[in-house]
Amino acid sequence: MSDMTASASPADVLIVGGGIGGLSAAFALAREGLRVRVLEQAREFGEVGAGLQIAPNCTRILSDYGLLDEAKRLGVLPKSMVMRDAVDDAELTRLDLTDLERRYGFPYMVIHRSDLHGIFLRACRTAGVDLVTDARIVGYENTEAGARVVSEDGRTDEARVVIAADGLHSVARGLLSDDEPVSSSYVAYRAAVPIEQAGRDVDLSEVSVHVGPGCHFVHYGLRGGEMLNQVAVFQSPKALAGEADWGTPDELDAAFDATCPEVKDGISLMWRDRWWRMFDRDPIMTWVHGNIALLGDAAHPPLQYMAQGAIMAIEDGWVLARHAAAHRAEDGSIDWRATLTAYEAVRPEHCRRVLTTARAWGELWHLDGLARLQRNTLLRARDTYDYSFIDWIYGPTALTPEEEPPMFAPIPLGSADISGLTR
Amino acid sequence: MSDMTASASPADVLIVGGGIGGLSAAFALAREGLRVRVLEQAREFGEVGAGLQIAPNCTRILSDYGLLDEAKRLGVLPKSMVMRDAVDDAELTRLDLTDLERRYGFPYMVIHRSDLHGIFLRACRTAGVDLVTDARIVGYENTEAGARVVSEDGRTDEARVVIAADGLHSVARGLLSDDEPVSSSYVAYRAAVPIEQAGRDVDLSEVSVHVGPGCHFVHYGLRGGEMLNQVAVFQSPKALAGEADWGTPDELDAAFDATCPEVKDGISLMWRDRWWRMFDRDPIMTWVHGNIALLGDAAHPPLQYMAQGAIMAIEDGWVLARHAAAHRAEDGSIDWRATLTAYEAVRPEHCRRVLTTARAWGELWHLDGLARLQRNTLLRARDTYDYSFIDWIYGPTALTPEEEPPMFAPIPLGSADISGLTR
Repeated sequence: MSDMTASASPADVLIVGGGIGGLSAAFALAREGLRVRVLEQAREFGEVGAGLQIAPNCTRILSDYGLLDEAKRLGVLPKSMVMRDAVDDAELTRLDLTDLERRYGFPYMVIHRSDLHGIFLRACRTAGVDLVTDARIVGYENTEAGARVVSEDGRTDEARVVIAADGLHSVARGLLSDDEPVSSSYVAYRAAVPIEQAGRDVDLSEVSVHVGPGCHFVHYGLRGGEMLNQVAVFQSPKALAGEADWGTPDELDAAFDATCPEVKDGISLMWRDRWWRMFDRDPIMTWVHGNIALLGDAAHPPLQYMAQGAIMAIEDGWVLARHAAAHRAEDGSIDWRATLTAYEAVRPEHCRRVLTTARAWGELWHLDGLARLQRNTLLRARDTYDYSFIDWIYGPTALTPEEEPPMFAPIPLGSADISGLTR
Repeated sequence: MSDMTASASPADVLIVGGGIGGLSAAFALAREGLRVRVLEQAREFGEVGAGLQIAPNCTRILSDYGLLDEAKRLGVLPKSMVMRDAVDDAELTRLDLTDLERRYGFPYMVIHRSDLHGIFLRACRTAGVDLVTDARIVGYENTEAGARVVSEDGRTDEARVVIAADGLHSVARGLLSDDEPVSSSYVAYRAAVPIEQAGRDVDLSEVSVHVGPGCHFVHYGLRGGEMLNQVAVFQSPKALAGEADWGTPDELDAAFDATCPEVKDGISLMWRDRWWRMFDRDPIMTWVHGNIALLGDAAHPPLQYMAQGAIMAIEDGWVLARHAAAHRAEDGSIDWRATLTAYEAVRPEHCRRVLTTARAWGELWHLDGLARLQRNTLLRARDTYDYSFIDWIYGPTALTPEEEPPMFAPIPLGSADISGLTR
């Protein structure tokens, strides 16, 4: 049995998976002075996909990492998020993202998935993370001193702790649960194209969401407005019928046939050579198996309706590193058992809520008939500045000890400080 | 060295302090099958004080314990909470407590402190908790197998874990911090009197709060409306001047001299033979010292402005017992190290926020001059049904895995379920 990285010095932490979750956790731990090695199965570190929305609970962490300015340069900071009915284009509700930034202290922004990945990759390199490619991990086991991983080609590596950020189809998750990915029978089409190809007037100051019967459509700008990002999601009749070949472009066109011109114009731009069938998994509350812990999609792959998948992964790494720092002895050694226990005490409940709420949001968005009209009435009744449905996600949590909770609604949460009043 | 309870069998957990925090934790742990002993310094188990407000984050736990119906029989469920200006009696803002119960799934109620204590005392007896009085603990030490306590008269007792619920002046806290109680220079007068002694029309469907310059006044009903509970709180000029004899009844009368008749009429009823100087402590984030852990006021004594002191203690016990259950091995033994690590990962941050926010609320309530008018404008602008300033306290937290978070504002949080829409 050969070592995976014969020449490298031993790591304190092995991270399996070099996606956004794995790399952000690696950076967070390296920042605490730990020797971290990332094992990525692909030939190169990279990300497929298109745009990504990053809410204040993520930009707050990027700011703590010193990476927010770079993210802002690469992304777009929209002024509002508007939800409309996909059938008649009528506005249902909106968020004022300028006010939202005031409330939570950090911006809501959109960025290309590969740009965010690149930010973490560069940060890892600068922080001295050992980045290994071509390492597909197929086996995990606890050892007396830590945990060991085995790659597809029989190589092994070992460290005090192994963090499995190996995604929706996580191998490590099998140590803790025999659940399988759950098909939503929905499929996503994406497109990220130069803005001049849009072929229509698009207001890039908005994140726009059209919700319709069994479908929805999202668009926003990327890279300072040079690109238009689009996502079209629909329920596949062939998936419902149990057919294997589901989510094909003919289904895309049929699903959006009854939508308004503003949406249909966008559908014609979608990439048609690839699509993403949407799976999540049931929440699990145990993420730690000895010295092996799950992180990101391996622990909590959501449906994407809350745009919190990548963010939860980034939060995981932040929390893990924070508790590692809190459980560091005077000689610099980390009490990993306490760290992983704390991580597991804090994270699964929040992620469970995001997973179940994302499913419920999906139902709400995709209603038809009378229920759709009732939904529209509810959404129209929502005050633009009522944040009660997102405070629990974007607001101060156990994640953010620097933040103070809201005082009274008129006092913005990002600066919940009444000292100005008493002067 | 004699044993404190020579005849009793050894306990799994010793709890020092038989107040609401100690007893509720004892009950929570006994409910998990643990052998629990409570060591109380007084001759008898009992509580001094008057009324107590218990918000949905507490009634939710009482419901889980099967104790809510008993609490409802002994308490009062008011219909609204109204905040008025103590100078001119003008309404500033209100909570609709019926709607609040709908939102959070559990009621907001008021109860006599001794009644709530009695509920936990009876529950502990039924659950087989060993209740020991006349045991004033003055020493704590970790041992190889757990922790040991020493009483004032030299007796000792020992268990796997010691929970110190020994209040504001906690001895055990000295193991973790050298901080001292912080005087707010405010003092509270109380009265709980038969309703016929009120001598004025009092609307017991309300929890009423009058906020004024350097003072505030609270009243509500108790025991099904048979009693009127009043609290008068003010800043003591003698405390500010550094005099030892502060908070005397002459200061009470002077402090409320400029308030409206609705308040002044109540002041005449206050008990004048005892008063409570109001102290809190700075937040501390480490509550666990080996096998000894702080709970309740010992860990986080707040100023009372959020009415969360007793509630936080009750939450502490619930969380502790929940994590003990989660870290139980197949042979029934509890991994206490993991349990205490999880407890400390979850609780201190929330309590830190309550402590700092309570101080800020106190400042807000007690403003004078122009700042008071600005405050009043802010409070009047608050929508009755805007819960963003309390969602983080009353809403779903890591405490309440059964609860789902809010979907959209119009959908009540207590039943965040859109299934009705899709039928």
